[in-house]
Amino acid sequence: MHFEKPISMNRLIFFLLLFWSCANCTYAQRSDSATIRQIYETALTQPKGYEWLEYLCKKIGGRLAGSPEAAAAVAFTRQIMDTLGLDRVYLQELKVPHWIRGRQEKAFVTHSKRYSALPLRICALGNAVGTGEKGIEGQVIEVKKMEELETLGREKLAGKLVFFNMPMENHYPNPFTAYGLASAGRRAGASEAAKYGAIGVIVRSLTTNIDEFPHTGSLRYALNIPKIPAIALATIDAEALSNALKIEPEMQIYFETHCQTLPDTTSYNVIGEIKGSEKPEEIISVGGHLDSWDLGEGAHDDGAGCVQSIEVARLFKQLNIKPKRTIRIVMFMNEENGLRGGQKYAEEAERLKEKHILALETDAGGFSPRSIGIGDEAQNVDKLLKWQPLFVPYAIQLQKNGGGADISTLRPLGTILVGLQPDSNRYFDFHHTSKDNFEAVNMRELQLGAASITAFIYLVAQYGI
Amino acid sequence: MHFEKPISMNRLIFFLLLFWSCANCTYAQRSDSATIRQIYETALTQPKGYEWLEYLCKKIGGRLAGSPEAAAAVAFTRQIMDTLGLDRVYLQELKVPHWIRGRQEKAFVTHSKRYSALPLRICALGNAVGTGEKGIEGQVIEVKKMEELETLGREKLAGKLVFFNMPMENHYPNPFTAYGLASAGRRAGASEAAKYGAIGVIVRSLTTNIDEFPHTGSLRYALNIPKIPAIALATIDAEALSNALKIEPEMQIYFETHCQTLPDTTSYNVIGEIKGSEKPEEIISVGGHLDSWDLGEGAHDDGAGCVQSIEVARLFKQLNIKPKRTIRIVMFMNEENGLRGGQKYAEEAERLKEKHILALETDAGGFSPRSIGIGDEAQNVDKLLKWQPLFVPYAIQLQKNGGGADISTLRPLGTILVGLQPDSNRYFDFHHTSKDNFEAVNMRELQLGAASITAFIYLVAQYGI
Repeated sequence: MHFEKPISMNRLIFFLLLFWSCANCTYAQRSDSATIRQIYETALTQPKGYEWLEYLCKKIGGRLAGSPEAAAAVAFTRQIMDTLGLDRVYLQELKVPHWIRGRQEKAFVTHSKRYSALPLRICALGNAVGTGEKGIEGQVIEVKKMEELETLGREKLAGKLVFFNMPMENHYPNPFTAYGLASAGRRAGASEAAKYGAIGVIVRSLTTNIDEFPHTGSLRYALNIPKIPAIALATIDAEALSNALKIEPEMQIYFETHCQTLPDTTSYNVIGEIKGSEKPEEIISVGGHLDSWDLGEGAHDDGAGCVQSIEVARLFKQLNIKPKRTIRIVMFMNEENGLRGGQKYAEEAERLKEKHILALETDAGGFSPRSIGIGDEAQNVDKLLKWQPLFVPYAIQLQKNGGGADISTLRPLGTILVGLQPDSNRYFDFHHTSKDNFEAVNMRELQLGAASITAFIYLVAQYGI
Repeated sequence: MHFEKPISMNRLIFFLLLFWSCANCTYAQRSDSATIRQIYETALTQPKGYEWLEYLCKKIGGRLAGSPEAAAAVAFTRQIMDTLGLDRVYLQELKVPHWIRGRQEKAFVTHSKRYSALPLRICALGNAVGTGEKGIEGQVIEVKKMEELETLGREKLAGKLVFFNMPMENHYPNPFTAYGLASAGRRAGASEAAKYGAIGVIVRSLTTNIDEFPHTGSLRYALNIPKIPAIALATIDAEALSNALKIEPEMQIYFETHCQTLPDTTSYNVIGEIKGSEKPEEIISVGGHLDSWDLGEGAHDDGAGCVQSIEVARLFKQLNIKPKRTIRIVMFMNEENGLRGGQKYAEEAERLKEKHILALETDAGGFSPRSIGIGDEAQNVDKLLKWQPLFVPYAIQLQKNGGGADISTLRPLGTILVGLQPDSNRYFDFHHTSKDNFEAVNMRELQLGAASITAFIYLVAQYGI
């Protein structure tokens, strides 16, 4: 290629300017991509997060808000952050609900010629009242949709156990869609059934699998409605129960749960901070929730998110990256059965008139990271989405729409909410069960997630929103 | 919005044409997206592939070419295809190498004050000669790079065992990169060391993990070089051995392997075909390899790819999709230690002057599908990449560069080679080990992979390349 016309001075200046600006842009781009590469390499070759997760799972274990394990988890994550040389590590005190499961639950079929005394695999739902020693027993009325309750009415439901058999459908590309659609029975079923005089509820576990594991999770009692006991039933038993009821509709179930709610108690969010070098008043929060259900070790939900968040701080410090804006690592307390940690964090942010520009949550499991979901439909996040090319080598998609339960409390402040979105296909194999253990987490997958959010937060800290 | 100027006739015609073509395009788009949605939903809700995989793994198991299990796998997959109502199901006869492992291998340290008789976790490499009952024993020379052999020379290597301690590095975003870089020792190390008079080789297993599992895999002996025995050593023992050699360089290792190569034997590719309704002469092949290593059940490698390929035919038939072009489902035999199935398939294609427009292989594990890699740098596949929007709901990326070992033999025919690319982070936890079992495969992940390739093949069958 050669120039056919002589080049004018204006043109020359134009090309020079173009070259200068491109050169600059290429330089910035290359420097960012080199930093991001360092972040990924360090996360993979020195997997601190994975080591911390092993401790959190194996030495501490399940850590529901208010439990001794939750207190240990507060102390442990504070201790880790204290070793990282952050500018500030502190606790944010708050009151949390204190629900305990008590003795192992039991349930079996009664008043059946075929199935009597057949044990069922159950667990109490979180926040539920217990039956105590005497247990409860009643005929079982199966419903497939919440609206059926009204049709059945008090006449059919009073004194009965309502069996919410709403399966998590398997045909959605993303199982979270199915979870959202199927979870009404667990969340609200007890109060809805109690309105019509039901004495207890049995909820099909929320998983697309047919297996032997009851999945716990929290319910919420409505005001001024009697609180009735509620259990989750393993899907394999839910299928069997549904079939058995077709043959013997008069069969009954007995169950016994020993859970109770103690007075609210004191707990903490754990927070670590790196001060921004140029705009310290602009705050970027990164967090997961420190509490977990008690049946397993809270590995995917959400030990993974906690250690990935602390990894952000560790990688910044270790790689000597000085963020222009302030970064806060937050271990939120009580996401599972109260969200008090998220609420407290937002209250304090408001009280101190802090400027929270962006908050990222990682609470969807320690699986292979696939995308980072940013903001909501109403927010213009085009600038952030333009960082996509930097994530291509790591197969991470930047896309609109993200967030997390704990950080949702920052929405009224106009904060851009962001969520790490790992592969979700195996999430409901483990979610809220006794299988959510350290062994279920893969080192590379966990650490790639940590690297992905670190890289994203690095860009936010450098360039703002 | 309203028109300010009166609209001319020409303009009107232009707009009408625009509308007509857009409406058509929207229609076609919508119809394809509806078909693809059906494909995904059926794959997830009726997981036949997962059931077939359970049989292949649990009832048949590891199935190296020439083994009784490989014969059973031929019969089993032919039987499945016979139930699907395909236009043609047939076997393609071929000769395969017949290597057998024989009795369990053993290895331990000798001539050491500290570690004598310490057992090492090993397995023979595929295609290797065995030591027989007498075993071999020798001093161990560790090398980190192939080039060190020349530096050490015959003086240092004659009569010794060469220990190729080339770790699969953990810092690459995709572990296949690390695998490619680290695998020379396993593939070529025995002959390279034998050139300098070494009597045997010990190869560090190919995984980024530090664990107790030896990973087998095939080696290739060079012509006119003595064939010496070769074993893979678990990474945890490779680390220990390397450390021990620093303290006691004179330590020796004894190992005993009972593998042998029997005369070539007869085996088969299994092929099922749906004839194209409009261009039957244009052939699209979809396959995985039916043979597997013997240590595990060949679940991810490559039972998963086999059942996913058969799912393509099943989903077409069940959803009554009539492809315009011919689709061939191919179970390739002997990918692991010879590639004879792929060679035979290409020979027959050439002999019959068949027009193979595209071939897809799925042989990277039954993990969550992430992308479909298409063609190579020299091929224009823009038309195929434009189908991307149809895959957005399933988070599948269409990208350049793909293929697979078995279908690589079709490259000289100008065929576009395509590979399903699942998440690879856990692949080398299982690859070529006793852990590659059915339990390591997740139903949703496997079936999403099957749906992804079915959707892609559907588009190729409708629109060509």
